[in-house]
Amino acid sequence: PHSATLLIHCQDRQGLVSRITDFIARNNGNIIYLDQHVDAQKQVFFMRVEWELESFAIPAADIADQFRQELAEPLAMHWQLHFSDETPRMAVFVSKLPHCLFDILARCQSGEWNIDVPLIVSNHPDLKPIADRFGIDYYVLPITPNNKQEQEAEQRALLARYNIDFVVLARYMQILSPEFIDHYPERIINIHHSFLPAFPGAKPYHSAYARGVKIIGATSHYVTSELDAGPIIAQDVVHVSHRDSVEDLVRKGRDLEKLVLARAIWNHTQRKILSYDNRTVIFD
Amino acid sequence: PHSATLLIHCQDRQGLVSRITDFIARNNGNIIYLDQHVDAQKQVFFMRVEWELESFAIPAADIADQFRQELAEPLAMHWQLHFSDETPRMAVFVSKLPHCLFDILARCQSGEWNIDVPLIVSNHPDLKPIADRFGIDYYVLPITPNNKQEQEAEQRALLARYNIDFVVLARYMQILSPEFIDHYPERIINIHHSFLPAFPGAKPYHSAYARGVKIIGATSHYVTSELDAGPIIAQDVVHVSHRDSVEDLVRKGRDLEKLVLARAIWNHTQRKILSYDNRTVIFD
Amino acid sequence: PHSATLLIHCQDRQGLVSRITDFIARNNGNIIYLDQHVDAQKQVFFMRVEWELESFAIPAADIADQFRQELAEPLAMHWQLHFSDETPRMAVFVSKLPHCLFDILARCQSGEWNIDVPLIVSNHPDLKPIADRFGIDYYVLPITPNNKQEQEAEQRALLARYNIDFVVLARYMQILSPEFIDHYPERIINIHHSFLPAFPGAKPYHSAYARGVKIIGATSHYVTSELDAGPIIAQDVVHVSHRDSVEDLVRKGRDLEKLVLARAIWNHTQRKILSYDNRTVIFD
Amino acid sequence: PHSATLLIHCQDRQGLVSRITDFIARNNGNIIYLDQHVDAQKQVFFMRVEWELESFAIPAADIADQFRQELAEPLAMHWQLHFSDETPRMAVFVSKLPHCLFDILARCQSGEWNIDVPLIVSNHPDLKPIADRFGIDYYVLPITPNNKQEQEAEQRALLARYNIDFVVLARYMQILSPEFIDHYPERIINIHHSFLPAFPGAKPYHSAYARGVKIIGATSHYVTSELDAGPIIAQDVVHVSHRDSVEDLVRKGRDLEKLVLARAIWNHTQRKILSYDNRTVIFD
Repeated sequence: PHSATLLIHCQDRQGLVSRITDFIARNNGNIIYLDQHVDAQKQVFFMRVEWELESFAIPAADIADQFRQELAEPLAMHWQLHFSDETPRMAVFVSKLPHCLFDILARCQSGEWNIDVPLIVSNHPDLKPIADRFGIDYYVLPITPNNKQEQEAEQRALLARYNIDFVVLARYMQILSPEFIDHYPERIINIHHSFLPAFPGAKPYHSAYARGVKIIGATSHYVTSELDAGPIIAQDVVHVSHRDSVEDLVRKGRDLEKLVLARAIWNHTQRKILSYDNRTVIFD
Repeated sequence: PHSATLLIHCQDRQGLVSRITDFIARNNGNIIYLDQHVDAQKQVFFMRVEWELESFAIPAADIADQFRQELAEPLAMHWQLHFSDETPRMAVFVSKLPHCLFDILARCQSGEWNIDVPLIVSNHPDLKPIADRFGIDYYVLPITPNNKQEQEAEQRALLARYNIDFVVLARYMQILSPEFIDHYPERIINIHHSFLPAFPGAKPYHSAYARGVKIIGATSHYVTSELDAGPIIAQDVVHVSHRDSVEDLVRKGRDLEKLVLARAIWNHTQRKILSYDNRTVIFD
Repeated sequence: PHSATLLIHCQDRQGLVSRITDFIARNNGNIIYLDQHVDAQKQVFFMRVEWELESFAIPAADIADQFRQELAEPLAMHWQLHFSDETPRMAVFVSKLPHCLFDILARCQSGEWNIDVPLIVSNHPDLKPIADRFGIDYYVLPITPNNKQEQEAEQRALLARYNIDFVVLARYMQILSPEFIDHYPERIINIHHSFLPAFPGAKPYHSAYARGVKIIGATSHYVTSELDAGPIIAQDVVHVSHRDSVEDLVRKGRDLEKLVLARAIWNHTQRKILSYDNRTVIFD
Repeated sequence: PHSATLLIHCQDRQGLVSRITDFIARNNGNIIYLDQHVDAQKQVFFMRVEWELESFAIPAADIADQFRQELAEPLAMHWQLHFSDETPRMAVFVSKLPHCLFDILARCQSGEWNIDVPLIVSNHPDLKPIADRFGIDYYVLPITPNNKQEQEAEQRALLARYNIDFVVLARYMQILSPEFIDHYPERIINIHHSFLPAFPGAKPYHSAYARGVKIIGATSHYVTSELDAGPIIAQDVVHVSHRDSVEDLVRKGRDLEKLVLARAIWNHTQRKILSYDNRTVIFD
């Protein structure tokens, strides 16, 4: 592995940065990126540190153990360790709208992202031709009020079989059950086509039009069991005017959705996100 | 008068633009600005047309009558006629926060805006020194649950005495009664310190922080009897991050509030706003 | 044809809007969109008007002739007439970078745009697999200092053979000759990866990094014989910081390029652009 | 003093963060903010660290000496030490345009900024009434080709007499001599009314109009002897259209100038800026 990244959060106390960076420096690691943040109100400490492994004294396979013993357990840290040579495996859930899917696959295919997408799941067959075009397995699992439980079991089996690290809901028009969501904490990313918390739920562009807003937005967030209320990862907006019909909002919103979802996926796979208390810390 | 501006809305039908521009052309008026809009869904026609009066065949004082007879009444138009040599008279209502007031007065004083501000009304004495500095009358009318009706009567008497055309609520922290509002339809402009409809009501920056949004906004709108629900005139936003405390949001929001309120005042006094069905058409 | 659109510019004079809208109204056309603009400095009048053809008295095939006789020739107008049932035919020129090409093809393929793309031309073979994936003819015409004239002749033959209406340079890294450009006035759209007029020419992201700008941009424009100096159609920007390396600028810029080029193509094919005096009027 | 802030840059090497934070932690300082950055290309290390002084073992007056001995000299650091209880003293240079001056004074007066403005210098008497209104000394020093040297000597004498820490050029329309500039390195902030490096020099709004750009901008930067080429601190932009005349660009640009200059002053006085190699590192 070329570099290692630690994501840490714990109760704030004096000397944390010093102790963590000393652990790396003492073992001959060269820090190439360090960012920390303290939530002064809640007294929580957050840190992302990335260092080169070339001359690091601890073998990659032993870093986790040693860090746990020396620092993580004594200081009651929540932490993750990632290596830059891992390629994350992503599943995409879609319904009928192709724009986010196309954008994701183009980024992966062109080498812009170092992400594997072995699996696409949909409740409709419509986008199968796109999956075929990119050579990706596409499963149609229609959801009805009666079969939701079995279909979700099937989805979870697919995620396990394909060894999936995280799921992206690319305008997937079904609500996942809390059971499903609980199995993938901070590992399901959704794109919602409004500037949350304005216009949660269905048909936000219609609501935005009816309210006469002058700006529309899109929001990517981790999925939690409360609908459209999970930790926000990225948001962006575009100005609109009275000239814009609902169809124009939909059209302009599509580009926002693509961008805002792509930023979330980028930051997630670059290990730049820490989630805490339904908020995100994004070290970008 | 140098130029005249007509703001028109009515049910859409064929030939409206042709008939209105013909009225102006036939009387030797030179159109310097024309914008029209059709709400295709509701079949409503909107138009703003401005023309030079120099060689116009109809004297300024007679234009309203003649337009009413020839077009407005036969076609059941809602319309306003304004002349460019009128200077609008604005009252500013404030509480304790000075930033919007300062910004407004600086724009008027420096000649950026051609608006008279003869009157400032507040429920607190705090900003009187600013009014004094700019030589503007400042009335302190504290509001309690018991005296609201009398104080509003006093406010309305002041608006009448000072011959006020429209009122700006520059972070005025009191809710006006429906009776007050009804007297000034589309003549009271408020600045709300959030991206409506997200976070209406009190303490939106605290709510935005708690929700963990990545963008905050400000909204200027005409005041209607439903709180923070009137026709939106302008909105703008700024990106924020996990590093921003509530105090940072307040600080960044101040600049937004100033800008977004100023845009509303500008468009209002430039007669660029038509309001319909709780939405605005802004010909800018 | 469902609707017709006229794009007009000519010297400004009184009564133009009235005469044009009267032409449409008299023949029983229902105007669904009208926008006009006067360049007060140069006294030039611009107009875009779109009307429904359903009950229009003049057959579609005769509109051009009749408009020419009645209005265009007497008033010395420059004008174009378009019908909404025409599908424009676009050729894409590329080199090695896939992101704009992917974005364009995804929009066409998904039905977001009603544009035919029968032809892709490149000076490199690299992107042929994408063309194959979308079933589009791809021609490799490498350019050297010695063969440029012949290769451009070949390109022009292809454009003729494929009946191409307009050309998009989607990060095509060759400079077209003035002769080539002159054959397609306002029919070649380029995306330049900077906020023009800052950083024209090669390697703008490197220049932006070296200058330490806090914002980077992208610019789409019609190609003229002066490099990167043609009429600007759309621009957009994104904030950057000291944390962004040149590679980050390239990555963030890619998304801008896609968006800004897509907006130009949309406005061009929606017939919303008038070009005059090296500037554009965009009726959006 | 409530807190101390160190701004450091030096050649990058292993263990820097560890050694600096250890210095603070060992002396019982609680770090409330730490940000660091490495310019990987040039191998330069940048850091801003702020810590509470309440229980800090080293008296405020001795911190500089001790830091110099222990770390700064051994590691060849460039560094500044600031205390949060210092109030910076700012001089404002103006010509005839009031909007930036008004905005600055309103922010200081309302307590938004903790900055003293004891001195305004101008080459014109026009804005003296504003200075009077805020009770600030205003000196008129007209500049001609013949008297520039003496007038600059007089300006420098004023800066010394008023004990000024840094100078803001708030649309000051004179070019300062290199001698003047050399006396205040990274202590003179200018606002330029374009998106640099586009449109340096005079009349950028006219140039922007002539070029037909779709976005205009403003840039704040430290003044260096090369005109409009110093390290950029902040930039922002606003979209414009064919409808905007030069006067509209000037009007819209005014708001940008105010905001972008204010952000630079805020970051400068919050000690968030490090300048290196004609670029800025902004820890915001």
